[in-house]
Order: sequence, then C-alpha cells, then structure tokens
Amino acid sequence: MASPPDRLTVRSGRVKHTRRLATRAFRAETGEFIAEGPQAVREGLAEPDAVVEIFATEVGTAQHDDLRVVAERGHVPWHVVTDDVVDSIADTVQPQGLVARCRIPDHSLDTLLAAHPTFVVVCADIRDPGNAGAVIRCADAAGADGVVFVGDSVDPYNPKAVRATVGSVFHLPVVTDRDTPGTLVRLQDLGLQVLAADGGGDVSLFDDTLDLSRPTAWLMGNEARGLPEATRGLADRVVSVPIFGRAESLNLATAAAVCLYASARARSID
Amino acid sequence: MASPPDRLTVRSGRVKHTRRLATRAFRAETGEFIAEGPQAVREGLAEPDAVVEIFATEVGTAQHDDLRVVAERGHVPWHVVTDDVVDSIADTVQPQGLVARCRIPDHSLDTLLAAHPTFVVVCADIRDPGNAGAVIRCADAAGADGVVFVGDSVDPYNPKAVRATVGSVFHLPVVTDRDTPGTLVRLQDLGLQVLAADGGGDVSLFDDTLDLSRPTAWLMGNEARGLPEATRGLADRVVSVPIFGRAESLNLATAAAVCLYASARARSID
Repeated sequence: MASPPDRLTVRSGRVKHTRRLATRAFRAETGEFIAEGPQAVREGLAEPDAVVEIFATEVGTAQHDDLRVVAERGHVPWHVVTDDVVDSIADTVQPQGLVARCRIPDHSLDTLLAAHPTFVVVCADIRDPGNAGAVIRCADAAGADGVVFVGDSVDPYNPKAVRATVGSVFHLPVVTDRDTPGTLVRLQDLGLQVLAADGGGDVSLFDDTLDLSRPTAWLMGNEARGLPEATRGLADRVVSVPIFGRAESLNLATAAAVCLYASARARSID
Repeated sequence: MASPPDRLTVRSGRVKHTRRLATRAFRAETGEFIAEGPQAVREGLAEPDAVVEIFATEVGTAQHDDLRVVAERGHVPWHVVTDDVVDSIADTVQPQGLVARCRIPDHSLDTLLAAHPTFVVVCADIRDPGNAGAVIRCADAAGADGVVFVGDSVDPYNPKAVRATVGSVFHLPVVTDRDTPGTLVRLQDLGLQVLAADGGGDVSLFDDTLDLSRPTAWLMGNEARGLPEATRGLADRVVSVPIFGRAESLNLATAAAVCLYASARARSID
C-alpha cells in the first residue's frame, strides 16, 4: 500500500498528547484518559461526550465498522493510522487496533453524594490497577451507585485499570478523594452503614445480624496490608468473608465480588 | 563475602532439573512442580512429602528462618544459593528469595470421586494460569472438595497458576482429566447436580428453585468464549450470576467466587 489513509504519525501533536495520558499528572491536567480495545470504545461511545477521538489501525477499522458508524453519528473523529501509532498510545500489546482519547466524567464525591446513593464501594489504598478495575466492574455488575478511591489509591483512570473495567468505568461514577475519614463520615451522614471488609472481621458476611438490605458503603482495603486499624475503626461493622476450607484469604477482587453480591442479593429481595 | 555458603550454580544438575519444571512436559514426566515465595513454601511444608527441596538466597534464608526450621524438621534439604540461581528457577521477578521443588500430589479423578465429594469445581478449557489459580483459591476458601481441569485447560501446576493459588494447591485435590463429558457424567452418577455458570444461563443464581445445599459440581468455562453449547447441554442447570447494573459480565474469577460462595452459604445453613 502506497501510504496510510491518514497522515498522523507517532510524532503528530494529537498522538503525542494522547500518549502522555499514560501519566497520572497529565490525566489530572487535561481531565482525559485512554480507553483501549473495541469493548471499552463501544461503551465510551454510548455515553454522550465521553470520547474525544479514536485512533484505529486499518485492520481495526475494517473489523469494527459498526463502531465507526456510531462514532460518525456522534461526530467523534476516527483516525485511521498505522499500527505503530496505536501501539505507541496503548498500554496493551494487542489493543485490537483501537484506542480512544476520552474525557474523565464530571463526577466528584460531591456530585455522587448529591445523588443520594444507597450502595457505594470505597477502595482505600488500593495499589494495583488490575484490582481497581476488577472492583469497578464488580461494583457495576452488582448495581452499585458509585466507587470512591480514597487515601493513597491507584488512579482508576490509569490505562490498566480502565482496561480491567471492560467498559464499566463509563457506567457509574468513579471518583477519587484522598480524605478517607472525611469520605466515610459523609457517607454515614447520608444514612449509609459503612461495612469494612476484612479477613479479621468480627462478624461473618452471612451473619443474621447483618442487614445488607440497608443503604451500605463497602470499604475495601489494600491488597497486601488490608485496612489500617484507624480506618477499620471508622466502620460501623468489620465484616469477614467466612473461609470454609483452608485458604488463608480471598484476593481483593474475589472478596469484593462476594461482599457486593451479598448486598445485591439482599437489596433485590427487599 | 568470599563465596556463597553452597556450591550450587545455575548449571548444577538439580538446579537445571528444577528449572525444567517450568514446562508442562517435564512436570508430567517427573510428577513435580515449582512453588515460589514464602507463603507457598510454608503451605507446602505443612503437607507430608510435598516439598522435595528448597532453594533460598541468603536474604531469603535470613528472613525465613522459621521455614528453615520446619524444613529441617521434615528432612527437606534447604540450599542456600546465589540470587541468580533462584532467579533462574522462578517465574516471578521477585520470588522473595525462595523457591521449592515439590511433588504433584497423588490425586486423580478416580481418587477424588472415591472420596465421595459433595462440592466440586470443574474448569473447562480455562487458559489463563492466573485465573486457574484464582479459582483454586476460591474453591479452597469456599470449602470445595476438589477442582477438576477438563478439556483443553491450562496445567494447574504451571508456576503462574501455583503462585495465584497462594498455597491452596496444597490444600485440596486439583486434578486434570481431558474428558469433559465423561467427568460430568461421573459426577452426576455420584449424585452431584452439575451447574454450568454462564452469563446466558436460564436460571438466576438467586432463584428459589435452585437448591444449592444439594451436592453440586460447578462448571466454569473459558474466560473469553464461555462454555461450548455441547458442554452446557450436559449440565443439569445453566445458571447466570444476575447483573444488576450495566456491566456485561463478571470476569471468570469473580463469577466463580460469587457462585461458589452462594453454594458455601447454602451448605452452611443446612
């Protein structure tokens, strides 16, 4: 083929700009992030004004003509570029020929709380982007109203985290607020019980005294260290997922799945 | 320091042998596998005859003197080696200074079934070792009697899978049998209901007609493709984890966690 159908190269301004969104500082400065792969791009295109522009390889363009139609209808530019342009932006080895520059939705702890949530997930000091994304996906599946990252947590708009959400980052408010105690108190002031998930919790997730149909904020801690004592102390209950076999614990995402679905189940019955 | 306290190098026979256990063929030939890191080594040492020998760096030896004591008591050789020996064996970048050559426990589908299991997990065509390990860990936590890998599944004794089990691979029978239909029929003949977990299932996990207190085998499918129609057709029920929000699905490990804990809960009440 003589030349690619578009003139963008790895050195083009908009490509460089998008590539820089791999850093947290530049995401904070611009309010933008990168979504990779067809499923994330599809979910982004379903939200008004979420996607700024799309970079697609020729193969990616041919394979995802449906998305190109949706992008055109929404006046979202679709740049057909060489493979190395997509590779230079994407964190993944194989982003399936598609990456999108997106706007971080205009949510904050204030807007989330103003919407009177009754089911919230709070992630404290979660460091691994894959875990952060998996928890967001679980929260979405379980019907949570939003996810708050507090303390020294990974940025949920990190490309790896976004990828692990498989589009859920576009579905519900995902906000960051460094103030862990302040966030928990504000949730309690709204009438939500704060349940800390902790292997050493004093009440079992399946205990009859636990009313999971009530408005609830689940508090999940760091994958290695769990929740610091001071943070656990702010919760209304410290809840453990019972271990029936000999495993020492569950990993963060699976523990979150079990807790959030216990709530979802109780809420769906009431 | 003049010389390391042990003469083993990356070219020593036992080091080369252990390194070769990274391949499925050599694991099958020898009946051995590699466990990395202090937690896996600790769980291995707790089982009689599970650990053949341990390779530890000087730092790993200093930090895990408790494990060295346990190893000595069990007559398990503990080789203090240079960092490059541990690095050459380990799949992880940082195995925390410890790797062990272990024996694959002497379980098979026959021995598992002979023990009259009432709670089994069957993984069909699961390809990702991290997922395989996470499911084994969940199965252990939920109190399952064993895990069977059928069809074209990853080897659960793959180093990455073993690492993701965080020691659970030593806790319950984990067996491989290529014959998917044969395995399911044998479980049904033992009186277990086979429940296929599938996002397109016709009964919700929380449906009242589902009796999870009964002896049950959960059938989990490939992470991308799910269960083939022919395999789903062999199940007694096809069960979906309900999606309350807008996520398209859960990932394999979190879906398994929710299903297995629904069973664990029902079994603990009855």
